[in-house]
Amino acid sequence: MVIPLVMDLMAGNGHAGVFFEAGLLTCLTGGLVALASANAVGERLSIQQTFLLTTGVWVVLPFFGAIPFVVGATEASVTDAYFEAMSGLTTTGATVFNGLDDLPEGLLLWRSMLQWFGGIGIIVVAMAFLPELRVGGMQIFRSEAFDTSGKVLPRAAEIASRISIVYVILTVVCTLCYIGVGMGFFDALNHALTSISTGGFSTRDASFGAFQGPPEYIAAIFMILASLPFVRYVQLMTGTARPLFSDSQIRVFLIVVTGLVIFLTGYRMIVNGDNPEHSFREAIFNVTSIITGTGYASVDYQLWGPVPVVVFFFIGLVGGCAGSTCCSVKIFRYQLLFRAIETQIRRIHSPHGVFTLKYEGRSVGEDVISSVMAFVTMFVVSLGILTVLLSATGLDFVTSVSGAAAALANIGPGLGDIIGPAGNYATLSDTAKWLLTAGMLVGRLELMVVLVIFTARFWRS
Amino acid sequence: MVIPLVMDLMAGNGHAGVFFEAGLLTCLTGGLVALASANAVGERLSIQQTFLLTTGVWVVLPFFGAIPFVVGATEASVTDAYFEAMSGLTTTGATVFNGLDDLPEGLLLWRSMLQWFGGIGIIVVAMAFLPELRVGGMQIFRSEAFDTSGKVLPRAAEIASRISIVYVILTVVCTLCYIGVGMGFFDALNHALTSISTGGFSTRDASFGAFQGPPEYIAAIFMILASLPFVRYVQLMTGTARPLFSDSQIRVFLIVVTGLVIFLTGYRMIVNGDNPEHSFREAIFNVTSIITGTGYASVDYQLWGPVPVVVFFFIGLVGGCAGSTCCSVKIFRYQLLFRAIETQIRRIHSPHGVFTLKYEGRSVGEDVISSVMAFVTMFVVSLGILTVLLSATGLDFVTSVSGAAAALANIGPGLGDIIGPAGNYATLSDTAKWLLTAGMLVGRLELMVVLVIFTARFWRS
Ligand SMILES: [K+]
Ligand SMILES: [K+]
Repeated sequence: MVIPLVMDLMAGNGHAGVFFEAGLLTCLTGGLVALASANAVGERLSIQQTFLLTTGVWVVLPFFGAIPFVVGATEASVTDAYFEAMSGLTTTGATVFNGLDDLPEGLLLWRSMLQWFGGIGIIVVAMAFLPELRVGGMQIFRSEAFDTSGKVLPRAAEIASRISIVYVILTVVCTLCYIGVGMGFFDALNHALTSISTGGFSTRDASFGAFQGPPEYIAAIFMILASLPFVRYVQLMTGTARPLFSDSQIRVFLIVVTGLVIFLTGYRMIVNGDNPEHSFREAIFNVTSIITGTGYASVDYQLWGPVPVVVFFFIGLVGGCAGSTCCSVKIFRYQLLFRAIETQIRRIHSPHGVFTLKYEGRSVGEDVISSVMAFVTMFVVSLGILTVLLSATGLDFVTSVSGAAAALANIGPGLGDIIGPAGNYATLSDTAKWLLTAGMLVGRLELMVVLVIFTARFWRS
Repeated sequence: MVIPLVMDLMAGNGHAGVFFEAGLLTCLTGGLVALASANAVGERLSIQQTFLLTTGVWVVLPFFGAIPFVVGATEASVTDAYFEAMSGLTTTGATVFNGLDDLPEGLLLWRSMLQWFGGIGIIVVAMAFLPELRVGGMQIFRSEAFDTSGKVLPRAAEIASRISIVYVILTVVCTLCYIGVGMGFFDALNHALTSISTGGFSTRDASFGAFQGPPEYIAAIFMILASLPFVRYVQLMTGTARPLFSDSQIRVFLIVVTGLVIFLTGYRMIVNGDNPEHSFREAIFNVTSIITGTGYASVDYQLWGPVPVVVFFFIGLVGGCAGSTCCSVKIFRYQLLFRAIETQIRRIHSPHGVFTLKYEGRSVGEDVISSVMAFVTMFVVSLGILTVLLSATGLDFVTSVSGAAAALANIGPGLGDIIGPAGNYATLSDTAKWLLTAGMLVGRLELMVVLVIFTARFWRS
């Protein structure tokens, strides 16, 4: 089945081949999950198998995803093609291709689809697998709406189907909105696919610089919607809107975004002397783009001055809500970290009082706290190591540290002249590209999933 | 008492005045502690009083410490003088003065003495106060050798006297060693004062660039000795050497330093083609200087290439052992963070097992874990905020982020052309200097001590 499709692909060379390939990818994903299901008939997927399956899928799929870039008009090297496919499937959105405007539409759509499939894939993994794997504190979401059986795969299938409906609806509505503000169908579809997945691939080298004006507002709205926990939309569909409004993660996220937009709008107006609408539009678009980890650029915000540069670096380390397509540290971990500070201050005040750390009204066990701590530590250590390794390929400090952050947090653009919002990853060395590829994978799977596999303990039984 | 001394000082203008001033400072420190003791007669110092006393001492003393810089040959502005004094008393070692080589010896000695007193002060605070205050996980050191009574101040006095003896002995031996390798008495004494306090002020603009060769080895040895927990030396004096060798914090610290020295020696030899002795000497000196947060520079390591720059940035965030004069995150917190990852991996492997996080054979309570987490979060958040504020004064990204790190971790030099190992803080704006001054204070007092005071809860009772 695989070989004829590859043949088709090579013959078609344009649209047709690419679409067959898309079908191939979908079959493969389905096939892997089906295979895993078959293995797990009657019994739950073991923890080890779940780790290997999750990591395996994200290592293997980019090879297939890379084929169109090698045989297509881009004629990319294996490194570039795998980088681009990984950047797609992890929803990072860093690109090694120059001249996007001149690429065949099939290839552009392929890139967008990689992100779209990667986005839905990660929501399912985050909701179905990670809480079971107790990774990065995700176990606090175990008792979420979907906690029906204890088996991993039946839950995964159920979650996937419900979430998919929401995901498709959001994508369709987003496409229509983009068309409504004047974008052509092809651009609208592609940007809808990469907005809802917070992926950030564009059809233009100038990214949203080519669509300044109303499309920026549409993008901002849908990037925010894509950063909320998708389980809330599923609940909304079944008629319960209350969880959507009572979710403290959503509330904190919206407050942070609003605060940053007000700050940067003010900064643009007062410091840069820009007009209110333009300041507000650029602020809301770029803040949303970076904090959600989408990574569209409508302008080189490095020209705004040193403050925005630093702000954009740090907000990339925030991320959206858990259970969305967003990567990075994510709001709920910051909530837990700040709860720890609050509890700490209470304890200092009343040394003999007993204070438990609470989240959403439930008390949070030591298990969750120490796994959030493990996540944050791994994030910082990975950032440090990746930065050192990138600098060893000859890159300067800013490019290394922002590139490492942009890969680990699946943002896309970094800082500086090379990989900043006005640049891309084309000129980096192959070594740097492979390092970043590894960074995207490790970051996308919440660090611990990949790293656990490299422990002796994992293989002992 | 104060006025005549200030008169003396202004008349003397050189050595004499400065030494009177030193006496004044010592009297003041003693006076404050005595005052506090008097208040606490018969009852323990309240938690609130301890927080206020600790912060108060580090805010007020620099004003007195700054006087010689205003009236002395430097004729510094209040901003510069307070910055320099705070940089001294927090053992940061960032300087705003050019032309150190031409300053009167009295002023140079004054700078060194500020660091030396600041160093002994912080050890006492870290050992006597912080465990009681449950700040940043320091409560795991509560059951250390000194846990005699439960009262804060009697312990403080006892600890201060025992530690002081060790501190003085180390300083004298260090001075003699510097003299032994050919440094003059004055340079030897000053550098001993700032080595044992891991402070990093030098008598020369070129810092250790003026003493290349054997003095670098002496400095490396004493910076390492100054980064170990001083309680171990006290135990050694009373005849028990075992704790010194069984302390896992010391072991991890020495392993990390050794690994880094081997790596950078190799890098210098292979990548830069330098000779073995020179590579080793520069590696051990500069690694030790930055990881202990001393901040001496013997060479501009930014010229070695991008890898060392990145490495030096990150090792500044490591720090030495708790209970020494070192600042930054410190080894024991990294140990706890990595224990959390290890425990996490165990839990993933055996979801139904019960695993407690252990340190030095004792199980670590949730209290300690969440306060380490609070510390790390506050460190990263403070770093982010300070970086943004510094960039708002017009500084570039590298200067802002490395300056913020160098202040919070009390290292001294940052990266880049302005505040890097070859530069100093003289040209920064007054606003930037005050921001950095605040950063040094907050970092020196383990972040929470200062921040707790700004909470409403603190003032409620
Ligand atoms: K992205
Ligand atoms: K220092």
